[in-house]
Amino acid sequence: MYNKVTPEFISKLQSICGNEHVLFDAESISLHSVDETEDLNFPPEVIVKPGTAQEISEIFKLANEHKVPVTPRGGGTGLSGGALAIYGGVCLSMTRFNRIIEIDEKNFQAVVQPGVITQVFQEEVEKLGLFYPPDPASRGSCHLGGNLAECSGGPRAVKYGVTKDYVLGLEAVLPTGEIINTGGRVLKNVTGYNLTQLIVGSEGTLAVITKINFRLIPLPKHKKVILAAFGRLEDATDAVAMIFQRGITPSAIEFMEKAAVEAAEKMQGKKFPNSDAEAQLFIEVDGNYPEILDKDIELIAEVVEEFNALDVLLAEDEQKVQDVWALRRGIGEAVKSISAYKEEDTVVPRANMTKLVRGVKEISAKHGITTICYGHSGDGNIHVNILKDRLDDKSWEENIDTAIREIFQLTVSLGGMISGEHGIGYSQKPYLPIAIAEAEIELMKRIKRSFDPNNILNPGKIF
Amino acid sequence: MYNKVTPEFISKLQSICGNEHVLFDAESISLHSVDETEDLNFPPEVIVKPGTAQEISEIFKLANEHKVPVTPRGGGTGLSGGALAIYGGVCLSMTRFNRIIEIDEKNFQAVVQPGVITQVFQEEVEKLGLFYPPDPASRGSCHLGGNLAECSGGPRAVKYGVTKDYVLGLEAVLPTGEIINTGGRVLKNVTGYNLTQLIVGSEGTLAVITKINFRLIPLPKHKKVILAAFGRLEDATDAVAMIFQRGITPSAIEFMEKAAVEAAEKMQGKKFPNSDAEAQLFIEVDGNYPEILDKDIELIAEVVEEFNALDVLLAEDEQKVQDVWALRRGIGEAVKSISAYKEEDTVVPRANMTKLVRGVKEISAKHGITTICYGHSGDGNIHVNILKDRLDDKSWEENIDTAIREIFQLTVSLGGMISGEHGIGYSQKPYLPIAIAEAEIELMKRIKRSFDPNNILNPGKIF
Repeated sequence: MYNKVTPEFISKLQSICGNEHVLFDAESISLHSVDETEDLNFPPEVIVKPGTAQEISEIFKLANEHKVPVTPRGGGTGLSGGALAIYGGVCLSMTRFNRIIEIDEKNFQAVVQPGVITQVFQEEVEKLGLFYPPDPASRGSCHLGGNLAECSGGPRAVKYGVTKDYVLGLEAVLPTGEIINTGGRVLKNVTGYNLTQLIVGSEGTLAVITKINFRLIPLPKHKKVILAAFGRLEDATDAVAMIFQRGITPSAIEFMEKAAVEAAEKMQGKKFPNSDAEAQLFIEVDGNYPEILDKDIELIAEVVEEFNALDVLLAEDEQKVQDVWALRRGIGEAVKSISAYKEEDTVVPRANMTKLVRGVKEISAKHGITTICYGHSGDGNIHVNILKDRLDDKSWEENIDTAIREIFQLTVSLGGMISGEHGIGYSQKPYLPIAIAEAEIELMKRIKRSFDPNNILNPGKIF
Repeated sequence: MYNKVTPEFISKLQSICGNEHVLFDAESISLHSVDETEDLNFPPEVIVKPGTAQEISEIFKLANEHKVPVTPRGGGTGLSGGALAIYGGVCLSMTRFNRIIEIDEKNFQAVVQPGVITQVFQEEVEKLGLFYPPDPASRGSCHLGGNLAECSGGPRAVKYGVTKDYVLGLEAVLPTGEIINTGGRVLKNVTGYNLTQLIVGSEGTLAVITKINFRLIPLPKHKKVILAAFGRLEDATDAVAMIFQRGITPSAIEFMEKAAVEAAEKMQGKKFPNSDAEAQLFIEVDGNYPEILDKDIELIAEVVEEFNALDVLLAEDEQKVQDVWALRRGIGEAVKSISAYKEEDTVVPRANMTKLVRGVKEISAKHGITTICYGHSGDGNIHVNILKDRLDDKSWEENIDTAIREIFQLTVSLGGMISGEHGIGYSQKPYLPIAIAEAEIELMKRIKRSFDPNNILNPGKIF
């Protein structure tokens, strides 16, 4: 199906990018064989680190000629295996595309290369009073290009939207070698098909992004955080929908069940307030007027009390806000340290979240597995971590696939989808037909072929 | 290239949709030969009004078999000829898809058929305290489906985004007859390619939308409007960028030059304040707290005074707000009543708007034509109306194409695009290569073929 990388192929890569940017030593191969997805390991045959779009174009031409697959890679923090070289071949590492080219203060825009780390970009624009909201958990190490590929979200998506909502235009290299520009630097645009939004979220299967035009917004001046503890899961999830119905759009509204908080406490060696409560909501509001935020917090406190909150804590100062965020941001890693696991990225209309969480608990009880739920409840985006925990290997192997299928079937029956922000990539590919019908998958495949007739770009992903 | 509609074809259409929904009398043909685009007239051979997605699927199968083109049509208010049957064939009128299926108050969502009139939908959701912001000038008669096809905007886009920003998912019929579902009913979704955003803005060339899942937001409770008059165009356009830089995002910030205000005065038979000023800005802010809006208005007043505003008027009560909106909304029709015209839908980064408007005036002086500029200045989206006015027919014919090309070249050189919200359709097709390179157009054509191998859906549009 594909050809192996030959010494001749490597020497051609070297002449395109320079010897120092073509790696094939064992350590480099090993580092580029994994991302943050559970237990996947696919070694590429060679790693190349191009410096320009033109070099990528030449790499693609070479790859087409030799029928060698090319898998682009950003920060390697993906959660669905999107950056893994399933069929070997070339790992196209984008680390040298690490420049913020321009921050346009007058137009609230920025032009950035895809290898810039998300947090680095955020901090740079914040110095100018501007705001780039998408904040995936990995923002300290993930690349903006990877965020675009997976259409990353994060806690603030509930108020500010996800990565796609900030992308105005792209420079990208098609797998056939053409360098294209999509969209532009304008806020409205119906000048031809929306190639930008087709490429964003396509998980690195349609084109390699080499430049991004972002829109930015003004940085809100103030934040307030409230933490509410509940005796019942349902009270926490039901309170979420009601907060919106009262007219408040928090800048984050995160759900954590008890086991998630406990795992974070254990890993961080800290004691958190109300960690014996069945569930907690972490709610942040932001804006320019502290007096309005006080009103919002008051209204939120009223709602959570209506839903039987056991305790309501206001994080008064910046340090307390940071502490609570550290707890929340640490959950993912903490939960995954317990045992072997599978992480699912379910998303439902938010009023259906209670049914989702309750159903997940029933499915896990049936199969004798442990599940820990937490996530972005304002978007109905719940990360379901399925843990092996004390289950024996045989039962785990026998039950895990069925349990995942049942969870996804439940999600879809509740009007939901099987990935909110992690992507399908390699790990969720077997489950795609649960969410998407044959006609749509066939259409997606035809679109893929219209970009990549030889299927050399990131094969083996999504479908 | 295409076959003519035959009596046999018509009788098959009748058996699919019922005799009463297949029209071919002269009056119906004449009504369906035009939209709101200047001087275009393309009669379809037959008009069919299907009632279900299944019927549309059967129509497409028939059309493929007979090689007859099918052009979908909503409210017929388009400004780029997107609904016109360039090659004759079938006009697929969506008027029977006129149901609001569900307004989901808990999740802030709605499921709607595409033939619902935009304003009807807006008023229904507002009764429940919900808000669907996109407000094209034609909202009293345009269809939501047409808004999706052209990715319509309107004054409020500056704060709330355009049509695409409210579409979560679609049911659509492919030109090959398959009925597909895209996206879903969730706020975040990376489950396969973003077919939703590829179809939205594709101007009815990729699929016929039969059902729309919208997200909604809470309806802001209060509005305030300020009207600022300027002695120089540049002062008005420069003030716009500065208002954003001071941290304010108005819910509308509309630019009108003197001739636009005069035309609206004349048509509406009313006298407007400061109508002798060279330019005016109409600025609206909205939100839930009147005291915050007062602060915003104060800051805006400071900015416009820094930019030499001649007069600043606050529309204190609802009636005054309505009056000023009526003025603004009447401009399009008023300007077009002056003489033969071409309307261009330029969009640039907003800080470049002054250069755009000034450059348009230079180009019009050079060619002896009249231009009237107005539009959504917060988005940098300026409608340039080129008027024949007192120019003789020969000079008009000789100069108009060159003038449009020069205006678009200027727009693109300022980082802009040639359509912000009207689409390319038929009327702007000759100018697309000014904005988009060959490689992108070729890619769009390949995507089109992946949806519509026989090119029977809305041929002759965009490229």
